[in-house]
Amino acid sequence: MRHFIIDCDTAEDDVASIFMLSKYGMKLDAVTIVEGNVSFQQQITNALWALEQVGYKDVPVFPGSKRPIVKNFSTVEEVHGKSGLGEITPSSKRKPENKHAVQAIIELSHQFKGELEILAISPLTNLALAYLLDNTLPERIKKVWIMGGTAFSHGNITPVAEYNFWVDPDAARIVFNAGFNTTMVPWDVVIKYTIDDNEWNQIKNMRTRLSELYVKMFSHYRQYDKEVQKLDGHPHPDLLTTAAAINPEITEITKKEYVVIDNSDSLTRGMTLIDHFDSDRPWSNSPNTEIVYSIKKEILLDMIKKMLSE
Amino acid sequence: MRHFIIDCDTAEDDVASIFMLSKYGMKLDAVTIVEGNVSFQQQITNALWALEQVGYKDVPVFPGSKRPIVKNFSTVEEVHGKSGLGEITPSSKRKPENKHAVQAIIELSHQFKGELEILAISPLTNLALAYLLDNTLPERIKKVWIMGGTAFSHGNITPVAEYNFWVDPDAARIVFNAGFNTTMVPWDVVIKYTIDDNEWNQIKNMRTRLSELYVKMFSHYRQYDKEVQKLDGHPHPDLLTTAAAINPEITEITKKEYVVIDNSDSLTRGMTLIDHFDSDRPWSNSPNTEIVYSIKKEILLDMIKKMLSE
Amino acid sequence: MRHFIIDCDTAEDDVASIFMLSKYGMKLDAVTIVEGNVSFQQQITNALWALEQVGYKDVPVFPGSKRPIVKNFSTVEEVHGKSGLGEITPSSKRKPENKHAVQAIIELSHQFKGELEILAISPLTNLALAYLLDNTLPERIKKVWIMGGTAFSHGNITPVAEYNFWVDPDAARIVFNAGFNTTMVPWDVVIKYTIDDNEWNQIKNMRTRLSELYVKMFSHYRQYDKEVQKLDGHPHPDLLTTAAAINPEITEITKKEYVVIDNSDSLTRGMTLIDHFDSDRPWSNSPNTEIVYSIKKEILLDMIKKMLSE
Amino acid sequence: MRHFIIDCDTAEDDVASIFMLSKYGMKLDAVTIVEGNVSFQQQITNALWALEQVGYKDVPVFPGSKRPIVKNFSTVEEVHGKSGLGEITPSSKRKPENKHAVQAIIELSHQFKGELEILAISPLTNLALAYLLDNTLPERIKKVWIMGGTAFSHGNITPVAEYNFWVDPDAARIVFNAGFNTTMVPWDVVIKYTIDDNEWNQIKNMRTRLSELYVKMFSHYRQYDKEVQKLDGHPHPDLLTTAAAINPEITEITKKEYVVIDNSDSLTRGMTLIDHFDSDRPWSNSPNTEIVYSIKKEILLDMIKKMLSE
Repeated sequence: MRHFIIDCDTAEDDVASIFMLSKYGMKLDAVTIVEGNVSFQQQITNALWALEQVGYKDVPVFPGSKRPIVKNFSTVEEVHGKSGLGEITPSSKRKPENKHAVQAIIELSHQFKGELEILAISPLTNLALAYLLDNTLPERIKKVWIMGGTAFSHGNITPVAEYNFWVDPDAARIVFNAGFNTTMVPWDVVIKYTIDDNEWNQIKNMRTRLSELYVKMFSHYRQYDKEVQKLDGHPHPDLLTTAAAINPEITEITKKEYVVIDNSDSLTRGMTLIDHFDSDRPWSNSPNTEIVYSIKKEILLDMIKKMLSE
Repeated sequence: MRHFIIDCDTAEDDVASIFMLSKYGMKLDAVTIVEGNVSFQQQITNALWALEQVGYKDVPVFPGSKRPIVKNFSTVEEVHGKSGLGEITPSSKRKPENKHAVQAIIELSHQFKGELEILAISPLTNLALAYLLDNTLPERIKKVWIMGGTAFSHGNITPVAEYNFWVDPDAARIVFNAGFNTTMVPWDVVIKYTIDDNEWNQIKNMRTRLSELYVKMFSHYRQYDKEVQKLDGHPHPDLLTTAAAINPEITEITKKEYVVIDNSDSLTRGMTLIDHFDSDRPWSNSPNTEIVYSIKKEILLDMIKKMLSE
Repeated sequence: MRHFIIDCDTAEDDVASIFMLSKYGMKLDAVTIVEGNVSFQQQITNALWALEQVGYKDVPVFPGSKRPIVKNFSTVEEVHGKSGLGEITPSSKRKPENKHAVQAIIELSHQFKGELEILAISPLTNLALAYLLDNTLPERIKKVWIMGGTAFSHGNITPVAEYNFWVDPDAARIVFNAGFNTTMVPWDVVIKYTIDDNEWNQIKNMRTRLSELYVKMFSHYRQYDKEVQKLDGHPHPDLLTTAAAINPEITEITKKEYVVIDNSDSLTRGMTLIDHFDSDRPWSNSPNTEIVYSIKKEILLDMIKKMLSE
Repeated sequence: MRHFIIDCDTAEDDVASIFMLSKYGMKLDAVTIVEGNVSFQQQITNALWALEQVGYKDVPVFPGSKRPIVKNFSTVEEVHGKSGLGEITPSSKRKPENKHAVQAIIELSHQFKGELEILAISPLTNLALAYLLDNTLPERIKKVWIMGGTAFSHGNITPVAEYNFWVDPDAARIVFNAGFNTTMVPWDVVIKYTIDDNEWNQIKNMRTRLSELYVKMFSHYRQYDKEVQKLDGHPHPDLLTTAAAINPEITEITKKEYVVIDNSDSLTRGMTLIDHFDSDRPWSNSPNTEIVYSIKKEILLDMIKKMLSE
């Protein structure tokens, strides 16, 4: 059995990731919450609600960092809708745990030493802080699946930076330097695999409970992606990362490369700098992550449909 | 009774600060250790040894961060001698606590809410991490006494940066932005109050147990300061800060100003940027710290002599 | 008749560009020399020699800037061979002009107002200085064809920066902000169109005077590109840019975008930052250049073969 | 006879410098104009007008750079009044020369090789460009007297940066690296020598032609300095520099130190970074300028009164 923590700034695609973990029978040991898409309290509520939709109702939710390590911060409700879940206004009677996410991550890393996988699909503040409090953490984590950054400097929050890394570039820099076993799914790879109008209609026509939630959750985000990001549909940054974690067959081209995140306060804030050389160059270095450059879309679609089948 | 935590990268002047706290009857609730002057294990040993010299043998020592938040790190044994205590090779049978310094700081802030003062006389990593894990920490801390930075851009580790802020400029930036009630004692103020040859000889001639420890502890540092820093004696950055905390009459000129720490990777890494304006200028802002610009040296000397009198 | 200035740090591919301009009957009004690939004096000699090979023996050569505007500088003989021309050791009896390149550029811009095109296939120092001395220069220049930068942050001198922009990022930043009508040919587009082994052998078998010079000139660079840049042949950054200037049919996909060059002293020095948005984002801006994203390789090959046919 | 160029962004204190050069019989070979305090055309007019007030009516005025090398730019009429000369609205029938200041500087450096002194009391763009066009310029210049920067990071345009260096930090960085023989008069030294109310009244009571011009010219600036810079009078940054050039006895404490100017786009833009060490430290380097730390105010006052005596 595989053990997961999912580190969320819970908007629609984080919720979809929870749905998929459940459908594929993954053991979810914790949901940890970090600053990001919408208000912190809303993100907690969204996570609690999401867990209840799919039989994860006993999975604990640990509130983590409410802010980036150094930079200032604001949320992006314009992207995800006020609740972060489009047309849905979630609620839950459950409470989050009275323990900090960072402490939970460290404790679980001991409990499931060498088995624990982290779905880091949000700003990397919690994971960076956990490492800072315990520098031996990377030795006990099996894999960190990171949604964030870019492969070709084609960003979303600025022209050259992706949101998760841009929000807390210091955290991202720390995580890539920490010695974790990581796989990174970049934004400008993710957007090659949008849900187009035909596929969107297929999902609409499924008329299952979860497909109806999916449509309500993603309609706002879909519109934003089409109008502002000029995409031909909505992409699944978090869900694709989760799918890659669950099913290695979905990834097609990957490369092990050295990545460093720009944490300056300049135009390049949050940029993913990739060393594609294997020869000597200024700041060239040994690979520290596996970057996903392409995936098999048909597998992604199959996994989504299976996920929404009930 | 006043409650203190002393946050140490335990070299000779940190030890002197412990001596002075004891002499003046301050309640020392914890010593927390942070990366800095010499090896982490040595710093723990030094703290345990120091506490035993002055009747603080039950004060717990909490190991904290072994590295800066983002930057790379190396120690400076050339300044303080291999042990950090000059000619002394300390040892102790006591063990440090099995709890992280950051957790200890947060717990003590609740236990002595509104009463706890922190002597932050080292890189600010522990304090920054404590704040990052609990953003309400500043509300419960009475005062943070910070040894670090510069008032006139006259540094020691680089031409323009002081060691404590330079080692972890991100931590320093975080702490000054966090809303703590702080007083800052800058390096280029401290060095106006060196122990000159005459005063050094007076201390030598005291021939008490502690004055003899003092001479052995400071001889290496004194030589370094004279030869490399081109000072006419050795200064007391940490001890002067501790004295200012104990005895408000020692400070002469102070100003409340806005301070921001440069955390770039450029020539200005670790610089203290001070807004001396009270009118509108680019990045001008409201005061966030009280800077000590001058002290009364005779009070400092009296306090040192009293401290060494046994 | 079209009027050109070619701004050279004269190595093998600059020379090839001179050959092609001649073959296609372009009026070459001046060659200007700028710091870059090899020693400044060598670059002058190379230019004088190249002009004599193709009936441009009266074209004046103007020495320009010997150094970048702000950054330090060193040449890259390891890439181009000691002379910059591989196996060839050129010489010439002609002398360069006793007038600075910058002054020549400004004067020619008046003489051929609205007609002059500049092949800027080297660090952009001369062009930037000409603009700084005469802010109205862009109004009189028909087009600047720029070889430099990247489209996908895939560099050659550092992992993320291309040599020409990296050598003088300040000059590049100035030129892109100056209001010139520019077309930019990026390194990571250029390397999609290398001369492979089959094509290299075809050229070898031409056995004309110029094809034999070509083989001698490019053999060193070809080996470097294969061994260090891990390419499957040698690319033609300068020559491809020149071909695009001569023959618009060679370009396939181009986009007008906003480009700003990173001139920091950090890992991102010399990076090409491209705004691909046409919606509002931090630092998004109106297009200031046309970027070439793909060309038709068969046209390039035909033009090279024609160029070498005598 | 001493030969001077004065490089002006002609406001009231530049004009006073012209007056003083004249009074002390200095040969003024050229006035060069550079972007700065007020509109470029106004600065030319101000210079032509000023020269006519003191028998310099044949001194040529050369327009130079209208903008900083890299940074964006705006003028500061709020400091100097709309004309730059407080209550005075100057005019002149003379025209500036039809030659760029940079070319004039280079030509004069040959004509008066080893004798020419430059009063660089404005942003350093012209001087930097002259160096960039002719890297041998510093060998022929006897001395550059620079008004600009800070000695203690106490700025005027930002909390930590002085206006002249802040406007064009790239130019300042270039000039300090170029190998000129320089003396630098920092802003935070200059403001120790303000004209207080008593001295202002003494000048008012002189009732000479030039003292009356002086009062009209400085009244606006004086008010600004008192209200916004919180000074107790107005300082004479340019005039003090000119006085130091004319009369070496005015300087009291000077040190030869290494200076580098921060040209980043961050909070430290335009900062003067001084290496006060003469031992090994990161980026420590050999002295490249003589910094004036104190002057004799009574000599300054005497020189001002003499200057205004007619």
